[in-house]
Amino acid sequence: MTGNTFGALFRLTSFGESHGPGVGGVVDGCPAGLELCEADIQKELDLRRPGSAKLAGTARKESDAVRLFSGVYAGQTTGTPIAFVIANEDQRSADYTTLARLFRPGHADFSYQAKYGLRDPRGGGRASARETASRVAGGAIAQRLLASEGISVHACTLEIGGIACDCDTIATAGSRPYFAGDERVVPAWEERIKNVRGLGDTLGGIVQIEAHGVPAGLGEPVFGKLDALLAAALMSVGAVKGVEQGAGFKAARMLGSEHNDALLPGGRFASNNAGGVLGGISSGQNIILRAAVKPIPSIAREQNTVDIEGNPTTITVGGRHDICAIPRIVPVLKAMVALVLADTVLQQRRMEKM
Amino acid sequence: MTGNTFGALFRLTSFGESHGPGVGGVVDGCPAGLELCEADIQKELDLRRPGSAKLAGTARKESDAVRLFSGVYAGQTTGTPIAFVIANEDQRSADYTTLARLFRPGHADFSYQAKYGLRDPRGGGRASARETASRVAGGAIAQRLLASEGISVHACTLEIGGIACDCDTIATAGSRPYFAGDERVVPAWEERIKNVRGLGDTLGGIVQIEAHGVPAGLGEPVFGKLDALLAAALMSVGAVKGVEQGAGFKAARMLGSEHNDALLPGGRFASNNAGGVLGGISSGQNIILRAAVKPIPSIAREQNTVDIEGNPTTITVGGRHDICAIPRIVPVLKAMVALVLADTVLQQRRMEKM
Amino acid sequence: MTGNTFGALFRLTSFGESHGPGVGGVVDGCPAGLELCEADIQKELDLRRPGSAKLAGTARKESDAVRLFSGVYAGQTTGTPIAFVIANEDQRSADYTTLARLFRPGHADFSYQAKYGLRDPRGGGRASARETASRVAGGAIAQRLLASEGISVHACTLEIGGIACDCDTIATAGSRPYFAGDERVVPAWEERIKNVRGLGDTLGGIVQIEAHGVPAGLGEPVFGKLDALLAAALMSVGAVKGVEQGAGFKAARMLGSEHNDALLPGGRFASNNAGGVLGGISSGQNIILRAAVKPIPSIAREQNTVDIEGNPTTITVGGRHDICAIPRIVPVLKAMVALVLADTVLQQRRMEKM
Amino acid sequence: MTGNTFGALFRLTSFGESHGPGVGGVVDGCPAGLELCEADIQKELDLRRPGSAKLAGTARKESDAVRLFSGVYAGQTTGTPIAFVIANEDQRSADYTTLARLFRPGHADFSYQAKYGLRDPRGGGRASARETASRVAGGAIAQRLLASEGISVHACTLEIGGIACDCDTIATAGSRPYFAGDERVVPAWEERIKNVRGLGDTLGGIVQIEAHGVPAGLGEPVFGKLDALLAAALMSVGAVKGVEQGAGFKAARMLGSEHNDALLPGGRFASNNAGGVLGGISSGQNIILRAAVKPIPSIAREQNTVDIEGNPTTITVGGRHDICAIPRIVPVLKAMVALVLADTVLQQRRMEKM
Repeated sequence: MTGNTFGALFRLTSFGESHGPGVGGVVDGCPAGLELCEADIQKELDLRRPGSAKLAGTARKESDAVRLFSGVYAGQTTGTPIAFVIANEDQRSADYTTLARLFRPGHADFSYQAKYGLRDPRGGGRASARETASRVAGGAIAQRLLASEGISVHACTLEIGGIACDCDTIATAGSRPYFAGDERVVPAWEERIKNVRGLGDTLGGIVQIEAHGVPAGLGEPVFGKLDALLAAALMSVGAVKGVEQGAGFKAARMLGSEHNDALLPGGRFASNNAGGVLGGISSGQNIILRAAVKPIPSIAREQNTVDIEGNPTTITVGGRHDICAIPRIVPVLKAMVALVLADTVLQQRRMEKM
Repeated sequence: MTGNTFGALFRLTSFGESHGPGVGGVVDGCPAGLELCEADIQKELDLRRPGSAKLAGTARKESDAVRLFSGVYAGQTTGTPIAFVIANEDQRSADYTTLARLFRPGHADFSYQAKYGLRDPRGGGRASARETASRVAGGAIAQRLLASEGISVHACTLEIGGIACDCDTIATAGSRPYFAGDERVVPAWEERIKNVRGLGDTLGGIVQIEAHGVPAGLGEPVFGKLDALLAAALMSVGAVKGVEQGAGFKAARMLGSEHNDALLPGGRFASNNAGGVLGGISSGQNIILRAAVKPIPSIAREQNTVDIEGNPTTITVGGRHDICAIPRIVPVLKAMVALVLADTVLQQRRMEKM
Repeated sequence: MTGNTFGALFRLTSFGESHGPGVGGVVDGCPAGLELCEADIQKELDLRRPGSAKLAGTARKESDAVRLFSGVYAGQTTGTPIAFVIANEDQRSADYTTLARLFRPGHADFSYQAKYGLRDPRGGGRASARETASRVAGGAIAQRLLASEGISVHACTLEIGGIACDCDTIATAGSRPYFAGDERVVPAWEERIKNVRGLGDTLGGIVQIEAHGVPAGLGEPVFGKLDALLAAALMSVGAVKGVEQGAGFKAARMLGSEHNDALLPGGRFASNNAGGVLGGISSGQNIILRAAVKPIPSIAREQNTVDIEGNPTTITVGGRHDICAIPRIVPVLKAMVALVLADTVLQQRRMEKM
Repeated sequence: MTGNTFGALFRLTSFGESHGPGVGGVVDGCPAGLELCEADIQKELDLRRPGSAKLAGTARKESDAVRLFSGVYAGQTTGTPIAFVIANEDQRSADYTTLARLFRPGHADFSYQAKYGLRDPRGGGRASARETASRVAGGAIAQRLLASEGISVHACTLEIGGIACDCDTIATAGSRPYFAGDERVVPAWEERIKNVRGLGDTLGGIVQIEAHGVPAGLGEPVFGKLDALLAAALMSVGAVKGVEQGAGFKAARMLGSEHNDALLPGGRFASNNAGGVLGGISSGQNIILRAAVKPIPSIAREQNTVDIEGNPTTITVGGRHDICAIPRIVPVLKAMVALVLADTVLQQRRMEKM
């Protein structure tokens, strides 16, 4: 509710700004006895680095090395808060000084100023996408817990700049460029990105996230529905403007007889239009979500805006920016789904006798 | 977190089942001194009744008369919990007895059984859409608070069964059949509904919700973003399978230069692709959301399913059911947006000196 | 946080005022499959009625009949919210009209007026001890859950008006007058109460609460210590002004070698100065707490006060009031301890594999 | 609820162990625009160091230098999470290795082992009093907020080892040895401490905490009473075994006519037996609390205990330990009261129009 804590029983508190000493987080509520080391977290953080898709990426150089600060002893979680820190290395505040008096279109500059009456102008401060490193680290810990329950989370890119692909093999998308749903689409995406970079413009896209091995029964009724928690989780990531589950917006155009997933013996279903959730409670099918990612708001083209006194002016955002939030947002969305599932797994345990 | 409470500072706790004595709720955190009477709530509950769209509606007859139980004295809220009850009148449990041993496709029967090990089979029990009456009542109280801040919430139907319309005048949609965005689409919708009813099938649609008069600065950073809270609010309503804000899924195909809303003097913007939220904080523009509503799962056609022992069988859902959740879901979605905004209004006050 | 909800996973939301239709509550988070009927709750509510100690008691006549509204089907909890209502029967608002413009010393009149800017003056409104009926009902449900875990909660009166007794057999105190720790003290208490009633004055006392069968491991570290939760639970009851655990205030005068409880084989201890909690986590010993209860503030003697304009005046509180909150507060304190323990039992389950 | 976060709107999340890299915390919800620097926090941390009472203190040497990690820009809070870290410098894990297989009486060793199935044995791990440094740092930030509202928090020692004093001038106690209520008692305390140190034993005591300048109206009704929150806050500090407000346990022996505080014109009262709270809401009088502190459990004398297999044995706790938790606990208790008040100040703002 204070905005920087996520989850009820498995709970991530995030802190840090783009241009301070670093970003970090505290995971509270992780059960004791889980094997955890820095490499488990680093592996996920490395997926968020621009390496896998250099064309789309930023010039900012960050090793994003995570340091565990508490909550782990002799290679195991102790049940106490797991704090971690990821240092900022390559911030160049000077890049941003000329922008301190202007509101960048599509950024949080204007709304933060309205909310707080002041703001840290260096690289967007707290509103920078840099905070997503804390999400990825927290999500890596969540994925350790989920793995011990046989649950895995996967994500792939379905669309960049209006060029779509399918995804039959999401579990292996992590090793493909752009985490592409189908590797054959990559040349077309790269062509599109190159063109748009030349225009000084940016692109959006669509990401699919799935969770496999989820038992039936996770989630709470009414307000705590699993799909509601997942929608909030994904929508809380800066660039996401839409979320859908299973058939999603297509469901609005289907007949009931088309949309209903017939039940089969053995807890199976004939289809998965529901995306793994019935009445807000997991059904045992794969959880399937898609998120719409808007184009990066920092563009090299001149835009109309106002300064902090409200005078009209123009702005051209320099600095080092991505052309497309994808693929860097993919591990972030995966992390958010993992955080929700870890929380609901612990929630569901309370229903069972010790 | 226990699922039946929504909000942090303006908080609705919902209770009740489809076939018990009734449904109800407790609103805690409403400031003292707000004028409130049962008629304020009844007005919103009446919008949820099938009157405005008889063709789409159910045969179940409920007056949905609300009774205030506490928290109001001499026509004003006292700052203490506002409890209310809406009696069930027309439940006919006998309709459901034959279904107690079967899992209805598209319903929560299977997932509730998996979660709890037992379930109230009468009309879906807690998973019935009847619980949305509590949301509408709570939302009506929220709208009283918002009105005192100059904020209003509106909703209209944009699409039923794949037939879409535009909406230029959402503030008056409440008086149109099906809360249609544009009244001229209604004959086409009625034709479609009549046909689908004849097939024993059901329809979905798309609803737009807007909030006007929202000041800049509402919402919290990172996990408590206003759009995240709104997405969870809408997705927590049973039939909703997708949510988008502003340009939504279309944003994924736009260039940055198209999507960014240029700032103008006076806190205005040249466009509203963001849907009223920047970096998760309200920008002072209208909040714009759309929700995808799946077709009603209770269809009169025979479907494949299993019984509670897992044996394959077929089911034909009788009872009294809607053809389309729209328009009854429209005031529910409006209520959910109002609940979120009331909460964030109170949250934001904490930033201001007393 | 909004004040009328208690607990995190086993959670009671309370509502109602002294002179409205009644008081009630919603228990959310109770696991499914627990046998529960109205008689289980009524039994505890009956302990709160003045029957067991007529001399100390009020003239207000309330049957305190509880009605279950939701969450129970076929005699079992369903995992959904359990709402209950206890109607007010014998409120006489006329008794209070002359007091509406005065602040009663020792009551919440002044502070509620300062907080809310208005108040329901009828019998103290929400600040009336009548709200404790909701606690007792919620606590009765908690005790059903605890019983299924082998945990029982007991309470007895140790002191009234400065006359103390010991308690060797707390498990049977429920059947003794005044829930006395030792029945032999009762004549002295009755003599004291009779004298003080003659003076138009009132008395306080001390109550001991114990929980037996509590497994080691309940409670959370640091801020969520079991003793912290228990202290808040007891202190949240209107008349309680002090709380101690185990040796309590006496611990401040003991040497470490006297206070430490030596560990014995089999998870036993040589003494229980800790009152069943080590480092905020239950040790498997009996939980032992004591609460100091102030004298009832409504006295028949004239007192100095001010009116709502701040003018000095005097007040003599008529109405029907107890001489001593004990014994009616005893089942309330027991209920609060049960609510805390039910919550921590569910919390602890999250640590265990499903 | 996960135990390491305190507060609802002004919220401290604490992390760290006795023998890891350090301890730290995240304050979320602090309003923007508050002047804050490391020296503001360091000042309070320095009060927690053994300097003021060398006789009672530990041989462990820690500079307790705090480093602000986020949430402050150009000397002002930005409204985003304020993270801080306090490095551990002088941990000597070797001191504790022989104790890893034994349960120290009066410590959390046994209960943590029962809860988590494993534990960090180095210096008590998370259960070490070292975590209170995070409380003091968080409380220092809370006190900055309170100062801007005209509220100050004070504390003094009333009793050590059974030797009591009065306190007329609590606002200046911070500069006296042992934070003594009255400096004249100090020689007697030092004599007592010297004797008890010679015996290899330890002492407890009583601390009084007051808050001045608190406006009427803070706190919530029923479960969120200000005294309930304060009791939990104090009882959550490791060594505290009892808490009382105003007349406290003495109230149990007073008549109603003695205990009631008569109201006077101008929002004043003739006495303050209530300790500043009526019906759980602040009355505008000084908040007055007392906490009973048990003797330090680490004693140099041989004690009976069991090892982790349950075999009986004896233990003599070496290491570097205090004779008396007072005076080091005094700034911790002050911090906890400040954290509660900061939270209720923000809570109360929600009742006011923006």
